[in-house]
Amino acid sequence: MIAGIELGGTKTVVAVGSSNGSILEEWRFPTTLPNETLGQAIAWIRERGTPDRIGIAGFGPVGIVKNRETYGKILATPKVGWAGFSITDLFASAFPACKLVLDTDVNAATLAEAKSGAAAGLDDVVYITIGTGIGAGILSGGRLIHGALHPEFGHFKVPRMTGDDFSGVCPFHHDCLEGLASGPAIAARWGMPAHELPSDHPAWDMEAWYLAHGILAVVAIVPPSRVIVGGGVSQSESLHPKIAKYLNQITAGYFGFSETDGFIVPPALGQEAGIRGALQLAIS
Amino acid sequence: MIAGIELGGTKTVVAVGSSNGSILEEWRFPTTLPNETLGQAIAWIRERGTPDRIGIAGFGPVGIVKNRETYGKILATPKVGWAGFSITDLFASAFPACKLVLDTDVNAATLAEAKSGAAAGLDDVVYITIGTGIGAGILSGGRLIHGALHPEFGHFKVPRMTGDDFSGVCPFHHDCLEGLASGPAIAARWGMPAHELPSDHPAWDMEAWYLAHGILAVVAIVPPSRVIVGGGVSQSESLHPKIAKYLNQITAGYFGFSETDGFIVPPALGQEAGIRGALQLAIS
Repeated sequence: MIAGIELGGTKTVVAVGSSNGSILEEWRFPTTLPNETLGQAIAWIRERGTPDRIGIAGFGPVGIVKNRETYGKILATPKVGWAGFSITDLFASAFPACKLVLDTDVNAATLAEAKSGAAAGLDDVVYITIGTGIGAGILSGGRLIHGALHPEFGHFKVPRMTGDDFSGVCPFHHDCLEGLASGPAIAARWGMPAHELPSDHPAWDMEAWYLAHGILAVVAIVPPSRVIVGGGVSQSESLHPKIAKYLNQITAGYFGFSETDGFIVPPALGQEAGIRGALQLAIS
Repeated sequence: MIAGIELGGTKTVVAVGSSNGSILEEWRFPTTLPNETLGQAIAWIRERGTPDRIGIAGFGPVGIVKNRETYGKILATPKVGWAGFSITDLFASAFPACKLVLDTDVNAATLAEAKSGAAAGLDDVVYITIGTGIGAGILSGGRLIHGALHPEFGHFKVPRMTGDDFSGVCPFHHDCLEGLASGPAIAARWGMPAHELPSDHPAWDMEAWYLAHGILAVVAIVPPSRVIVGGGVSQSESLHPKIAKYLNQITAGYFGFSETDGFIVPPALGQEAGIRGALQLAIS
């Protein structure tokens, strides 16, 4: 038996699964304080047995670089009670013989989408989420990239669209990709939240232009076979083809993909991605 | 016994080494036509024994994605006789029982610098070379990133420095990073080649600004512990501290490194990096 936990900012999902990663049973409940939330998850798992392996997908920022003192802990967060809390210490004391694998929620979702979702069977996949911030999970050669620093996909700079003088909303870098194209950036730029903007609003053209430039950097640095674009802001129906159109224009055919070949796709697993990914982490 | 070949555009280096990757004997000779050049390398190795493993560092572009029909071949190149030539087929027929490991010259150099050079002992290293083009080798979690497409680090877009209206020299994308900051870009922009520009010339400030923006994308996407900046254009003595200064300014402390902590460094192995890397490939 294996177990998985998707620890989200507002809800937590816990599941037990079989050794191939499929879900046998799951339970969703609200995320409250750390000891209470994780205590409920641990008790629920214990009622079902003792897992050999547990995969944990944590909301960010969470320390995932091994051999760092931050490993296993929730880092700076406005969520009351969570900053500095060690998820792995609590699970290690609850299940001392169990192997724990911790990763970010977006990395877990990337693994799930690459196993059985929008990039099923592919080894080189980037999953970009656009919501309150802009984050990414990167699977390269079948392995999730972690790197050595605090990974923050959205915080690099892209060119400005001609005529755009919006100052950007990132408190650190103003007009990095996240500062120009996250959900709060769209809301500040257009005076209404992304989900209220109709799909023919010019906001989506600009959003696609900026995302295409961000994806271009990913394509040049860790060439993926497919890029999944998800998160709340991505749910405008016209966004994915617009990104593909701009990406194709700016790459000028150089990287060998076309705007119509499914290189830019939405996620396929919906709400199930996180918990499925947590189980994939457990067996990875 | 192991062997390594560094196949360069103008010179080839062949070496035999011990199982820990150290060089026992090496030979440098000019690169001519493929059968002649590789035939000389094979004959030289045979005189010294039959290796168990051979590492090959090839000049680019070379097909390094396994299971592609281009694997092992030199791709489109102006070098007479080399386009489409299969390096791995020739070595496999010469040494049928031997394990071959092929990679690009920059990936091999990255491996060597991370083993015993400017990033000795580090698992997350980016090695950027700036010369005729801009390329990069990326070691992430101790493994070289290959990805799925034609990897071309220099071909993504960065913001324009205020007031810079140079059109860029990339035949595909005009003002991508390579189009704005490669050796030919410097020569076209300032009317003289990089090695003739004094170290206090404003060209170096602009060069550092653009490279810092390119490195920022790498830092956000595959957070490395150290970035090595090499290649002919990097040999201006003032370039590395200038890049570090700009990178520190634009990251605003966000990623947790400072401009004085050796995050941006020159390579350490000089001409030996390629052949040492080929031997590291053999034992990898």
